[in-house]
Amino acid sequence: MVSMAAGRTDWTRRRNEFEKRLCEGRQFVGEPGSKIVDPLDCVPLLEAVIRSGDRVALEGNNQKQADFLADCLCNIDAERVNNLHMVQSVIALPSHCEIFERGIAGIADFSYSSPQSARVAKMVSEGKMRIGEIHTYLELFGRYFVDLTPDVALITAISADRDGNLYTGPNTEDTPTIVEAAKFRQGIVVAQVEKIVDKLPRVDIPGEWVDFLVPVGRPCYTEPLFTRDPALITDVHVLMAMMVIKGIYAEYGVKSLNHGIGFGTCAIELLLPTFAESLGLKGKICSHWTVNPHPSLIPAIECGFIESIHSFGSEVGMEEYMANRPDVFFIGPDGTMRSNRAMCQVAGHYAVDAFVGSTLQMDRYGNSSTAVAGRIAGFGGAPNMGCDPPGRRHSSPSWLRAGKESAMTQDLIGPVPRGRKLVIQMVETFGAGRVPSFVHRLDAWTLMEEAGFKVPPIMMYGDAITHLVTEEGIAHLLRCDSLEQREAAIKAVAGYTDLGREADPKETLELRRQGIVQTPQDLGIDIGDANTSHLAARSIRELVEWSGGLYRPPDRFREW
Amino acid sequence: MVSMAAGRTDWTRRRNEFEKRLCEGRQFVGEPGSKIVDPLDCVPLLEAVIRSGDRVALEGNNQKQADFLADCLCNIDAERVNNLHMVQSVIALPSHCEIFERGIAGIADFSYSSPQSARVAKMVSEGKMRIGEIHTYLELFGRYFVDLTPDVALITAISADRDGNLYTGPNTEDTPTIVEAAKFRQGIVVAQVEKIVDKLPRVDIPGEWVDFLVPVGRPCYTEPLFTRDPALITDVHVLMAMMVIKGIYAEYGVKSLNHGIGFGTCAIELLLPTFAESLGLKGKICSHWTVNPHPSLIPAIECGFIESIHSFGSEVGMEEYMANRPDVFFIGPDGTMRSNRAMCQVAGHYAVDAFVGSTLQMDRYGNSSTAVAGRIAGFGGAPNMGCDPPGRRHSSPSWLRAGKESAMTQDLIGPVPRGRKLVIQMVETFGAGRVPSFVHRLDAWTLMEEAGFKVPPIMMYGDAITHLVTEEGIAHLLRCDSLEQREAAIKAVAGYTDLGREADPKETLELRRQGIVQTPQDLGIDIGDANTSHLAARSIRELVEWSGGLYRPPDRFREW
Repeated sequence: MVSMAAGRTDWTRRRNEFEKRLCEGRQFVGEPGSKIVDPLDCVPLLEAVIRSGDRVALEGNNQKQADFLADCLCNIDAERVNNLHMVQSVIALPSHCEIFERGIAGIADFSYSSPQSARVAKMVSEGKMRIGEIHTYLELFGRYFVDLTPDVALITAISADRDGNLYTGPNTEDTPTIVEAAKFRQGIVVAQVEKIVDKLPRVDIPGEWVDFLVPVGRPCYTEPLFTRDPALITDVHVLMAMMVIKGIYAEYGVKSLNHGIGFGTCAIELLLPTFAESLGLKGKICSHWTVNPHPSLIPAIECGFIESIHSFGSEVGMEEYMANRPDVFFIGPDGTMRSNRAMCQVAGHYAVDAFVGSTLQMDRYGNSSTAVAGRIAGFGGAPNMGCDPPGRRHSSPSWLRAGKESAMTQDLIGPVPRGRKLVIQMVETFGAGRVPSFVHRLDAWTLMEEAGFKVPPIMMYGDAITHLVTEEGIAHLLRCDSLEQREAAIKAVAGYTDLGREADPKETLELRRQGIVQTPQDLGIDIGDANTSHLAARSIRELVEWSGGLYRPPDRFREW
Repeated sequence: MVSMAAGRTDWTRRRNEFEKRLCEGRQFVGEPGSKIVDPLDCVPLLEAVIRSGDRVALEGNNQKQADFLADCLCNIDAERVNNLHMVQSVIALPSHCEIFERGIAGIADFSYSSPQSARVAKMVSEGKMRIGEIHTYLELFGRYFVDLTPDVALITAISADRDGNLYTGPNTEDTPTIVEAAKFRQGIVVAQVEKIVDKLPRVDIPGEWVDFLVPVGRPCYTEPLFTRDPALITDVHVLMAMMVIKGIYAEYGVKSLNHGIGFGTCAIELLLPTFAESLGLKGKICSHWTVNPHPSLIPAIECGFIESIHSFGSEVGMEEYMANRPDVFFIGPDGTMRSNRAMCQVAGHYAVDAFVGSTLQMDRYGNSSTAVAGRIAGFGGAPNMGCDPPGRRHSSPSWLRAGKESAMTQDLIGPVPRGRKLVIQMVETFGAGRVPSFVHRLDAWTLMEEAGFKVPPIMMYGDAITHLVTEEGIAHLLRCDSLEQREAAIKAVAGYTDLGREADPKETLELRRQGIVQTPQDLGIDIGDANTSHLAARSIRELVEWSGGLYRPPDRFREW
């Protein structure tokens, strides 16, 4: 037996540190044994429980924000506490940047920062923020349990009871994951809540997992990120949506899926009760969803098209509607929805037939990116859902058929069958401001150089994408047997962009003959008939009507 | 606006059904308002709350088992309740099969069934069990939130209080995931517990999420699945382990990782404080783990080699040791460990540099499988961890280097850099009983035909594997620029198997020259010195000594 001399002997550093901080923080609780801290004492509380160099998970989700705690964190004494390492899903609020501007935090590991993308890029170039890594949500959650475990979690809930039990309600989102990672590594957990109540509607987080409660007297900030006004859907969106429904969903029998946000997917959702129904597809496609509660799903739900929806987060205004549709949404014993970003990302990765997203730019190989020079926006959840998970082992008709059609698989694993998830990109050949979507060089390369990234921030790689849909047609990229053929198929539907003009008409014709490229005509879709009159709802108001008044859109979406 | 005439009007079928069942089940609780049911009434309770055709999640984890509830489920009246659809992680106990033999269940969706693999195959061939699909753990959990949501969850915990709050302790495993999926779709949750207590050590599952408690007066069955006796490690295991440490971990700088179970990985763990330490690798490799609490990790922990371990489940006998090493393991406010299979699988998928596993058979393309004709064993978690997740976007030195070396990536995505996770297979050229590990045709094909699977049950596909390690050497498969070169590299280390004898010595020499194949000699490892004297512990007893008596191995592993 090898000597045991060089052994480590101290095994409770984290626990001792926790006890010390808890003790220091408790001077700010109202009465002995309580966890409740007056909001006016929150800044000194944070100064007591956070140490320089700590990893801090400040709950900034896709939707809800621990905004009060973020403001307080900006106001702690940077002389006393600095060099924090922020490990948080989203950099969304100005205060999230202030923490860096004021020298309190030095490094950020995150997933998404679109609302602050220009400022993040500026802070990086000025040396005020170092970026650890940019993740998708689920991989950041994974690292919470490996090498980015938070020392302190600053979270938000709707209400708490005196024992610290939390009700997070429809916007449960990341909270359980952050708290579990922090609390079970002896971290400090501070929750801002609207109020303290005697009895919670339900318990989402057990009280012992929470150390301090700050009742701030108002709801936390939440953003209606997934609401799209149907009035802004164009005839082109309708055309592309019809192609997806008829040329892909119906063909492959797509039962379970995730939709990104965008007017193309919004159009698909609003065509389900009309165009899809007229094709006899009810019960055959789009029955099971991993998706945020998009208001544009309401008509399809009301028509009985949709059986089940599990969500990453909630959506402002949808709470009452969801509570009244408990057969469809994940609703707790108390009657309100519970989301869970981690488990919904798992489901969107592993358990669905198809992902549909959009992008700003695509190169000749099919690599796509939403990166823009001068903006560091992150990835969110798209790369996790917009890929074929190699660990998947269960089959579905869609998965088997897509696998069979994948012409490059044999080059990788020999003559062995395996299935494949559908990954669909809906891209107009020219985006906002007539900027071409198909380019020779992705802006991701420029951003990589500017920001000092080690690889360009590609949202989805070309080998992940099975279908590219533009207003020109569908390119069945999975059917291409080489990178060269994929390139030709992309060009064939890239319209009048520089890339599209490189398409060889003879080759395009041959690709159509082989079924690799399909135009609307090939799909039997009449372009003249592809217009917004087919949408089940053409305004927010009509969505409200479909919901029987249960959907309550935020004011900014009300035109009445 | 499209007509809303054809709308669905009934939205509370699941809730009404839940209320009805709850009401019927409550006739078996001891007193009004209580959730506690006498174990003697458990069979009629299950008959009251389960309906024919239900999806039932019977908690059968990798380690702990809701064995009492499984026994009771076998004894319900099959005339009254039948055709159940079991959706459970593991088919492990004889009772799990009895449920099918007795005609109570008809179909199974599961992940792993090795302990009952022969019986499962027999039941399938006799038509007593239909297999829905076989999954990895994480994808089954994903489907719990999409199309396989349980109507009834039969789970197990250590203890409960009168409100139904549960303490699941170190073996928390799948429980939170099963309960969340079932309860938030208005399912019924029944928990067997050892006992009801006034105050739980901590709350792992909130009480409102649990409908009925059955205190059975004894712990549930748990299996020490991850204990390997160091005495059974051979010199060949040591040789292969040295190659992995020196030729892969040190080369790529592997900081975070997962190990499968097997004597090869066990040897690596026991060489960390000796061989790896002598190479100056402490602090440079293997600091962060997603792994079950293998007893063979104890010496590396005691030497300070390991910073952090997050676990899928627990391991019998390790409880006290873990509780005394709170800086390393994930320990709750009560002082005991909490595992979480879902989050650990997420971390193992997305957040680590390397996975090391083993297999029974590999074909010329690198596809590997543990499938054996006549046995349906499932996948467990290996395919989820043993793959390069395409959604990963954060980098690490290991990931960047492996990506750079991946010679086939350009064929897939053009000249664009991306990283790669290391997936290492340790395989002796001949397995138990001198059966060759390298074969022309995987038994998975035969099993596919026998069992009527749609694709062969491949554990890992050849394009996932970066390194193959046999006693002959390391084949750096990621460095191969074609399927043909990969085949040559596999043959070069396949020894005297049929496949190995096809190796062309000249080609092998060229592969060695290019660094695609490395022999122990190429790595500077003296075969004569590769023996078990280097292991930090050579018996279970020595592991106990390393732990200062805190590790308490089950009787079957005690030779003293």
